[in-house]
Amino acid sequence: MQRMGMVIGIEPEHIAEYKRLHAAVWPAVLARLAESHIRNYSIFLREPENLLFGYWEYHGSDYEADMAAIAADPETRRWWTFCSPCQRPLPSRAAGEHWAAMECVFHVD
Amino acid sequence: MQRMGMVIGIEPEHIAEYKRLHAAVWPAVLARLAESHIRNYSIFLREPENLLFGYWEYHGSDYEADMAAIAADPETRRWWTFCSPCQRPLPSRAAGEHWAAMECVFHVD
Repeated sequence: MQRMGMVIGIEPEHIAEYKRLHAAVWPAVLARLAESHIRNYSIFLREPENLLFGYWEYHGSDYEADMAAIAADPETRRWWTFCSPCQRPLPSRAAGEHWAAMECVFHVD
Repeated sequence: MQRMGMVIGIEPEHIAEYKRLHAAVWPAVLARLAESHIRNYSIFLREPENLLFGYWEYHGSDYEADMAAIAADPETRRWWTFCSPCQRPLPSRAAGEHWAAMECVFHVD
């Protein structure tokens, strides 16, 4: 299992909307995450820096394929049309990233 | 169990030192965390924004007392004399905070 951290900005005027969306994430979106072996997924918000931090645990064996399946899912794509306008990706993110990956520098069980 | 996220800055010139320290955290420090009911604790680094994100799961029932026990532990206090100079607390943090608390806006198991 791989613990992963990721970060993205949030538009301050869309924080309320983002919270509202994430208080009731669509079942099809959650199902697709589970099918892609994502577990124990949390998103944390920091204001006034307006940052979102995502943490999840990946239990699969082909991360690229599992992420591609999420990105190809029609309901997830529709979900993203609501979420993406709330988010402000970091200018420093890698090519192809939306959320920017972080490096795990410490872990204890 | 409560999932908690927290954020702090890191001095870019001390990133290597911070990583070195956290590749071999002192056993007494880890033991004190466990005694204070902290589990599944990870720290993630983002460059070039120079942010650390901490995630842990708190399994106790008296968070204030558990944190006070950590803060009173001599070995942990000595550990902090190495870590704190690497860190740059957010100016927006609450009174009494070192790491700044984040708000959990989403979770799925």
